[in-house]
Formats: sequence, structure tokens, C-alpha cells
Amino acid sequence: MASFTHFNEHGRAKMVDISDKKESARKAIARSSVIMNKNVYENITLQKNKKGDVLAVSQIAGVMGAKQTSTLIPMCHPIPISGVDLSFEWLSLENEQYELVIVAEVKTVGSTGVEMEALTAASVTALTVYDMCKAVDKGITIGPTYLLEKSGGKTGDFKRDNKDTE
Amino acid sequence: MASFTHFNEHGRAKMVDISDKKESARKAIARSSVIMNKNVYENITLQKNKKGDVLAVSQIAGVMGAKQTSTLIPMCHPIPISGVDLSFEWLSLENEQYELVIVAEVKTVGSTGVEMEALTAASVTALTVYDMCKAVDKGITIGPTYLLEKSGGKTGDFKRDNKDTE
Amino acid sequence: MASFTHFNEHGRAKMVDISDKKESARKAIARSSVIMNKNVYENITLQKNKKGDVLAVSQIAGVMGAKQTSTLIPMCHPIPISGVDLSFEWLSLENEQYELVIVAEVKTVGSTGVEMEALTAASVTALTVYDMCKAVDKGITIGPTYLLEKSGGKTGDFKRDNKDTE
Amino acid sequence: MASFTHFNEHGRAKMVDISDKKESARKAIARSSVIMNKNVYENITLQKNKKGDVLAVSQIAGVMGAKQTSTLIPMCHPIPISGVDLSFEWLSLENEQYELVIVAEVKTVGSTGVEMEALTAASVTALTVYDMCKAVDKGITIGPTYLLEKSGGKTGDFKRDNKDTE
Amino acid sequence: MASFTHFNEHGRAKMVDISDKKESARKAIARSSVIMNKNVYENITLQKNKKGDVLAVSQIAGVMGAKQTSTLIPMCHPIPISGVDLSFEWLSLENEQYELVIVAEVKTVGSTGVEMEALTAASVTALTVYDMCKAVDKGITIGPTYLLEKSGGKTGDFKRDNKDTE
Amino acid sequence: MASFTHFNEHGRAKMVDISDKKESARKAIARSSVIMNKNVYENITLQKNKKGDVLAVSQIAGVMGAKQTSTLIPMCHPIPISGVDLSFEWLSLENEQYELVIVAEVKTVGSTGVEMEALTAASVTALTVYDMCKAVDKGITIGPTYLLEKSGGKTGDFKRDNKDTE
Repeated sequence: MASFTHFNEHGRAKMVDISDKKESARKAIARSSVIMNKNVYENITLQKNKKGDVLAVSQIAGVMGAKQTSTLIPMCHPIPISGVDLSFEWLSLENEQYELVIVAEVKTVGSTGVEMEALTAASVTALTVYDMCKAVDKGITIGPTYLLEKSGGKTGDFKRDNKDTE
Repeated sequence: MASFTHFNEHGRAKMVDISDKKESARKAIARSSVIMNKNVYENITLQKNKKGDVLAVSQIAGVMGAKQTSTLIPMCHPIPISGVDLSFEWLSLENEQYELVIVAEVKTVGSTGVEMEALTAASVTALTVYDMCKAVDKGITIGPTYLLEKSGGKTGDFKRDNKDTE
Repeated sequence: MASFTHFNEHGRAKMVDISDKKESARKAIARSSVIMNKNVYENITLQKNKKGDVLAVSQIAGVMGAKQTSTLIPMCHPIPISGVDLSFEWLSLENEQYELVIVAEVKTVGSTGVEMEALTAASVTALTVYDMCKAVDKGITIGPTYLLEKSGGKTGDFKRDNKDTE
Repeated sequence: MASFTHFNEHGRAKMVDISDKKESARKAIARSSVIMNKNVYENITLQKNKKGDVLAVSQIAGVMGAKQTSTLIPMCHPIPISGVDLSFEWLSLENEQYELVIVAEVKTVGSTGVEMEALTAASVTALTVYDMCKAVDKGITIGPTYLLEKSGGKTGDFKRDNKDTE
Repeated sequence: MASFTHFNEHGRAKMVDISDKKESARKAIARSSVIMNKNVYENITLQKNKKGDVLAVSQIAGVMGAKQTSTLIPMCHPIPISGVDLSFEWLSLENEQYELVIVAEVKTVGSTGVEMEALTAASVTALTVYDMCKAVDKGITIGPTYLLEKSGGKTGDFKRDNKDTE
Repeated sequence: MASFTHFNEHGRAKMVDISDKKESARKAIARSSVIMNKNVYENITLQKNKKGDVLAVSQIAGVMGAKQTSTLIPMCHPIPISGVDLSFEWLSLENEQYELVIVAEVKTVGSTGVEMEALTAASVTALTVYDMCKAVDKGITIGPTYLLEKSGGKTGDFKRDNKDTE
């Protein structure tokens, strides 16, 4: 059975030694979302022709957040991110709720994966959407955040089952 | 109708001027969670007498993450956080799923609220739980993240309705 | 005659003690610019209706850069910035050159001025414009950068003479 | 015609994917300057035998600033800088003005160039000179900042024409 | 008996709430040192008329390190440092060893003390001396580091007994 | 005779160019300690079954501190740390003093050594122990900090002589 790798023989957390892992091309894709009412939705989308919209600020925050991953997550290795791309999609939910889906794709050529970088990019993007919109509604929800897929590295590829997803 | 405050007259994002806002005691409480299967749950809870468990690392990451909020969120003001407290609770869900509920309370005496600091603390805590457990299961979900309540400041108090919550 | 304040009695740099300075509202406005050829100019301006244009990225970088000032400038005091606003203006120069003028206004209520924050915001904005456009032309010039005005604090107000300006 | 590379197919900024680019030795040299009156010039140069002079502080800030480039510039890749060297030269201008020329050379062995690191190092150095001298004169100007040359990488070498330079 | 304040009722670390503590002028002075052989000592002191000596770099690192304290120390409050001053003194020890004594004084007007800022400034200064000299001798020792005195705040003043000191 | 490498031909500090150095596996082990009275010792050790003990917080701070090394130490190269492991040992000294020995081991596969990362990890760990315990006793001493051993790289292996050690 798989068990935790982040602890040393004294039971204390450590940054796992990856000195012997080969460098390879790796990719991870994570998803978060922001669920809001119609008022917030319209505030965001009606300004979409403006020069600096909510999504532009949030997406730039996400790219920059990916680069802060190893500063934020204690046992994360600092790795040379080779690409970050964030995209948005709007879903219309019931009860006049709207969901802004955030998909973050991060790549590296390195000795460890970029799952945390993708999850951090998606989370920081969602947090920034909240920040830009909280003057209108503090009840906005940051939706579930999870890894959609990863590839590269010796543990092999991962693709989230639909049934995993809420 | 409330509208966005984070844009200047050219439609570009700005950090809102709070020079004229009075300093006052403020508090915000946010919630996030991590939903996992029984295997991950047992890995976390069975090591709970060890010196450096998953929750200890995650909670320290959350406290430190609160202090990085204005570095991560572009239009956030840097503010002197005066206290951060994180707590955990376990919920047993159906289908042998377990939810680790994370509640982050942040305080300041300042000119603007600490909602983003509380949400960031909760999010970074959840991301760190994921990081520490991803060797066991990459299908872990970071649950919805939202503001539970805030107090202080001129916009008055906020308390999330139960019906807002998923 | 005014002399340097940033050195101690051993001739070594220090962060000047401002413990006895009163807090007051302060403002500083700085200017930088980016001078480019027609090709770069058109690349920037023709995409201006897109969701994430060059100026949006650069201006967000400038706001975030203002918050990094005391990390970058060794003897700068960390201060609670209370507002940052950046604006752009295009000037047409001779020889088909175009100048993007960047004006950064920063405010605080604190014990020391925000000149460095305004100058850093303007500089980081200009550097980001260069970064976004360097694939088109590496000969772009970041124009002179200087303080336009400051107010507040005991040294009184400052307004740059036109004759100071190149 | 060359066009921008920093945008995805939705028109949003992204960090360009460099996973397929080969690592190679790269170098970039950038120039900035600080233009000041005789009073400031003499304040700086007369202390030059002291242990911690203005130029020492500024140059260390420049080296450290180079390492912050990817934190400051949103779409910049984090890269392992392998060397930074800053040098100064004084020019005597007309009207009793003096120009401190700052030249920053940055090297890496990596998948992308270090133009932004060299430009950031030169800019942070110039900003620090301003900070250390602003108690004497707030009218100091940070001169134009530009890339002098770069080498390495598939886009080939670049050397700024004299006619590009003001 | 005094007991730890950094733990919440679940036994987990927290950032102690200082919302109710009054702001007051506070000061802390810490000491560290670097103990080296004659060869390293002469390398440092013989270059002391040069523009950028070992002590200049180390002392600037110490000032900047003070500003990173709340980023480095998990439960430390971010506070507005109002002054940092570092000084050096040489002691001649037996067996041709030399001790560079580092004294860091930090001030704030705030709700909590600056002991950690002074200790961090002294430590980072000492680490930088090591870094600059390690090509000559890796056996250099960073001497004991401790608080010399603090003043301000409700716990009253502290002055280290000579007998505490090694 | 070995001499300093961190200065350019003008006598100014530079980040040494390591572009031509080969990447290899490297390791460094550093030691620091915290010396305290029986009261502090018992406060730390008696809570050792709690979820967030002093040592857990300090050790996580040390791992995260290792990743901040190149931000803190001016001429340090940013390097991809591949592993960090911290361990503790208690020594009983005379006069009812107790010494918590901190050993930090850092690894990389890179072009330069990780001595500074190991020393910084050990120092930040010790500073955090002080921070967590200073409410009980401000007279705690951070013991001498030094490199125990390093391996890898062209300067060969280093192992501290016992006689170097206090």
C-alpha cells in the first residue's frame, strides 16, 4: 500500500530527496472554479471589453502564483516551470448561479511533477476572482479544486475519473 | 447596485485607495476542506501521535500563507495581520469518503478587512494537505472554499447563510 | 547642505530610524516610459480590445511591484501602501517612434514617503512592457524615470520643474 | 512579421512553453543610468573610501534584484542565474550634470534568455541610487534603460545599434 | 510559571492574537559573531579600503534580512520596522583566531517586539560573512547568537546577564 | 593561497559566474543548536505528544528557510534544492542547561554547492525555536553554527575536524 513519503525516520516532515530522479518533460492540469450569483456574473461579463477585466487580473495572478508554489507549500521542491496557461469557461447552474471554471496547465522539464503548481495556479486565480468581486457579494464560493490529469515521471500518467468529480 | 471598486476611470485595475478609512479591529473566518478516501484518511490519522504530522505541516503552511496574501493577490493591500488561528475537524461522508474541514480565523487592526487573508490561509492549508498525501492518492479533492463570517469595517458584519453553502 | 542619511557613524549603510516621525497621509507620483518603433506600437494597440492586453499585464505587474519595493531596495522601510493607480498615455515622437508614458501614483498613511514605491511601480510596469514585446523588438528603450511630485511629510511637497525633465 | 508570443488562443497572457527549447549558455548585458547634479555627485564620490558607499549598496541591490526578476515580471520564467556582474562609470554632462552609467551582465545556462534579468538588475541598481540620494535631491533622473547585447539561444545574438541609443 | 503562547486549544501552533496590544516604541539588540582563522581575517581586513568589502555586503544582507523575518519565522507577526543598524567589532582570540562581533539594533513602533528581527538580522549578516569567505576556509564558525537587550512593550525591559553569555 | 572569489576587478561584489561548472550531485550538512535552561527544556519536551510541537514548527521553518537562501544571501546562486532533512538531538549540559542540536542535510544536483542552504536551514530552525520559546525565557542562546561536511563539486569533500568544533 502506498504510504506517505514526506516524513523522515523520526516521523518529522522532510523535503523528499529527488537527486536520483531523472529529468523529464512533465505536465499537470488542475481545475478550480468560482460560483456566483447573476449580479456578480453580469458585473464580470459586462466589462469584458474593458482593458483590464476581472479575468485578466485573476489569470495573471494565477501565472504568478504558480511561481510561488515552492514558497507556499512547505515540502515542495523549487522547480523551473517551463510554461503556464490558464483558461476560463462559464457554466450556467440552476437557481441563477454561474460557475466560472478555471483550468490551469503547467509544464516543466524536471525531476518532479508540477501537480502542486497547477493546483496553486488554479487556486490563486480563484482567490483573485473572489477579491475583485467581494465588494459586490461576499457569499461567492470557490468551487472544488482538483487535479484533472498529469503526465510524465515514473509514477505514470493520471487522469481523474468522472466519478471522482463532484 | 454595488459595483466593482478595483478599476480606475480607464477601466484598468488599481489598488483601491484606503487612505481615508479608519483603522479598526477586524476579523474574518474562512472555510476550506479536503475530501479523501479511507486510505488517505487512515494514513493521516494513524500517524497523529507522531511529531510532525500532515496536519501540523499544513496548518503552519496556512499561517505562513496568510502572510503572503498581498504578494499573491494583485490588488490586495499589505496589512499588519495581528493573529491567525487554524483548526481542523473531520467529517465522515458517504461512500467511505472523509472530509477534513479547515477553518481559518484571521484578525487585524487596520483600514481594510482580512477576508482574503482568511481565504488564502484556508486554501494554502488545503493545498498542503494535498501535497503531503498525493503520493497515496492524486484524486483527493479540495472542497469548496468560502467566507464564513467577517466583522469590523464600515461595510458591516457578514455571516454566510446556511443556504449559501453547498 | 543636505547630506546622506543612510549611513551610520561607521560609514555603513543603515535603515534610517523613523520611530519618531508622525504618521501622515502621503502621496508620490512617478513617471517612466517605453519608447518603441511603429511595429511594436501597432502590435500593442491593435490588440487593445482583447481580454488580456500588454498594458493590462504591465499595469498589474506595476501594482504588485509597488508592494515589493522594500524587498528590492535595501534601505527602504516596509510601509502599508494604501493605494496604487497606474495610467498610460501614448505620445507620437519623430522618426515613427512612439512613447508609452507610464504614470504611477502611490499613497500611504505612514511615517515615511512613498517616492520609491511610485518609482518602483513605474519601473516594473515599463520592464513588463519590454518583456511582453521583446519577441518583436529587443531595441525598445525604457525612457527616463523620475519623480513628478510628492506631498505629505515634514520635508514638504515636491513638484518637478519642467526644466528638470529631459 | 514577428508578433507577440505571450498570449494564448483566447487572447490571454500566458507563460510561453519552453519545454522543448534546448539549454545553452546565454548572456545579456543591459544599461541604465542615474543623472544628477554636482551636489549629489560629490556626495557620492567624496565618500568613496568609506566602507559602505552608495554604489556598494546599489550594486548589491542589483545583484539581488536580478534574482527577483521572475517574481516581478509576470510572464518571466524562473531560471537558474549562473552569474551577475555590475559595473559603474561616471560621465560628465553639460550644465554641471553627472551621469552614473550602470552596466549589468547576467549569465545563465538555460532554456531562455536573461535579458529581463539584466534589465531588472540595472533598474534596481538605479532605483537604489535614487533612494540613497533622495534626501539630497528628489530631482534625480533614472536615465534610459535598455539592452546592450545578448548572446545564446535560437533567436541569435543581438547588439544594440548606436543609433538606437539616445 | 510562564508557558508557551504559540499554541491554540487543540495544541496546534497559531500566530498569537495581538489585536488588543497597544502600539509603542520598541527596540531590540542582538549579537552574533563569526570566528575565523588569521588567513580569513586578513583577507577581510586587507581589502577594507575597497569599494565593496565583505562587511559591506554582509551588513546590507542583514538589513534586508530583518525585513524578511516574518516570512522566515512561521509564527512571527509582520511588523513595520522603523530602523535597522548593524555594527561590527573585531576581537582577537587565542590560537590566532579572530572573532567578528555583529551587533544588530532594530526598532519599531508597533504592537509586538522586534527581538526576532534583531536576531534574524544578526544571523543573516553572519551567514553572509560565511558565504563570502567560504572559498578560503569552510571551517569558519558562526558564533553564538543571542538577544542582548530589548525595551518597550508590556513584558518590560530585558538585559542579558553577563553570566548568560558564553 | 586561496582568496575571495566574490569580487570583480573593480573590487565590487559579484555573483560568481558558474556557467562552466558541471552539474553534479552535491550534499552539505550543517549544525546549529539552541541552549536553554531546564524550564524551557521541559516546556518543549513535555508537550511532545501534542499535534503541533515547538520542534515541528521549527523544523518546517528550516525546510522552508533552505528554499529562501538565495533570497537572503546576496551573492548566493539560486539552485534547485533536491532534498532537505532536519533532525534534532538533545544534550544535557552542566548547570541544568540543555542543548538542542539541529542537523540540517541539504542535497542538490547542480553547478554549485549547498553549504549555504544547509547553514541557513539550521539557522532558521534555531531562530524559530527561539521565537516559540521566548515568552518563557529571552536568555536562550543560539549555539555555534557551522558546516559539518560537504561532498560533491570540484573543490572536493570537506569534513570538519573535531578540533574546529567547540
